[in-house]
Amino acid sequence: MTLSKNKIRAIASLAKKKERDESGLFLAEGGKLVSDLLPSFRCRTLICTQAFMEQHPEVMAEEVILAEKEEIAKASLLQSPPSALAVFEKATPSIDKRNISRHLSLALDTIQDPGNLGTIIRVADWFGIEDIICSLDTADVYNPKVVQATMGAIARVRVHYLDLENFLRENEGTPIYGTFLNGEDIYKQDLTPNGIIVMGNEGNGISEKIAKLIRNRLFIPNYPLGRATSESLNVAMATGIICSEFRRRVL
Amino acid sequence: MTLSKNKIRAIASLAKKKERDESGLFLAEGGKLVSDLLPSFRCRTLICTQAFMEQHPEVMAEEVILAEKEEIAKASLLQSPPSALAVFEKATPSIDKRNISRHLSLALDTIQDPGNLGTIIRVADWFGIEDIICSLDTADVYNPKVVQATMGAIARVRVHYLDLENFLRENEGTPIYGTFLNGEDIYKQDLTPNGIIVMGNEGNGISEKIAKLIRNRLFIPNYPLGRATSESLNVAMATGIICSEFRRRVL
Repeated sequence: MTLSKNKIRAIASLAKKKERDESGLFLAEGGKLVSDLLPSFRCRTLICTQAFMEQHPEVMAEEVILAEKEEIAKASLLQSPPSALAVFEKATPSIDKRNISRHLSLALDTIQDPGNLGTIIRVADWFGIEDIICSLDTADVYNPKVVQATMGAIARVRVHYLDLENFLRENEGTPIYGTFLNGEDIYKQDLTPNGIIVMGNEGNGISEKIAKLIRNRLFIPNYPLGRATSESLNVAMATGIICSEFRRRVL
Repeated sequence: MTLSKNKIRAIASLAKKKERDESGLFLAEGGKLVSDLLPSFRCRTLICTQAFMEQHPEVMAEEVILAEKEEIAKASLLQSPPSALAVFEKATPSIDKRNISRHLSLALDTIQDPGNLGTIIRVADWFGIEDIICSLDTADVYNPKVVQATMGAIARVRVHYLDLENFLRENEGTPIYGTFLNGEDIYKQDLTPNGIIVMGNEGNGISEKIAKLIRNRLFIPNYPLGRATSESLNVAMATGIICSEFRRRVL
């Protein structure tokens, strides 16, 4: 079957945030990713090969279009055409305040790179972090590059966008952590099993107004201390190392 | 000044491994990166703006070409033109067996993604790992994408390419670690201050012939244990978390 030009145009438009916001839809590509997301998001349109369909006879989608890979390539944003491409409805998760006070969460202060956001969501999933609170100017979780980089983890992690300063003020009863180049050695600090870990912008770190709300200032020490090294770790890498250290304490 | 077509062609050719191997040269782009590498690598050609030159009056290069950004853009592989672009001579580090037996090193078994290799070199640098031994089929450290992703860390980390199986056999007196999905909880294992940490291919993990040589099989536990999660961590992320845990023990 061939894809109509309108359909191809509608799918391509989901690369733009404005279109995703207006339609409430997002795009995911690749057989593995699509099959990981199908149980968790309502699927509007599934475009896939006959082979994909046979491997996933249970799929639920409002519209299924069987097509050859060359046909799928016309709608795909990827370099090599996937065996499946799907348009899903975005989720609109709500925040449960008890989850925030009892569990470990992440708060992202202006993370701009889609790859970093995707990697952060993937590592959060590994370490059982279920809520990520993003400042309003953080990259969009439904950007196709983010969706791809999560490797399916967006099916398990709730990503919220809100005024981060307000959010932290409303949750001051919960321990709030953040990383700073002049923070305290994370390996030697008391870390609680619950809390909010704030991660800052790639170039500028945590903004001043947010930093004021952080009582627990952490640092991942380089080795050996004082040796000349890179100025900092990549923010996604730092997030993974910090989450690992928090979880180590309770395992 | 304008760049000759020959010069532009010669620079662009360094995107290819064959050309880098034959010429012994590699390309680095961006004012920050170029100035980080200038003290560590012999510079054949530096193409930069007048402003870059004024900020770095001490630079040493066989040939310096001052040019406007629009001119530099013609030779650049980046999306936005950098203030400096340099052709350097590749380093040919040698392995000091005493360093391998006394310090912590990384061994990469067929890491294919340039971004992953660059990120691994950057995090190795943070944790003071000075030698990375790559299997012959690991991505080339002088691939421009790797060079960019290291953020200058290649000035401090020695990257070697050799037959990994032979290398591990020759260093069997040194503790050899590797990560496996069925390995032992890294947080609960004894970790030595010295050793070789083997990291495996993005899709297939550590190859069988290498796995046989690894006595210490590690695993980064997900949280909570047994919860449905992603199948694995990204290899660069896993490398960072493992290096952090090794260094934590000796800090």
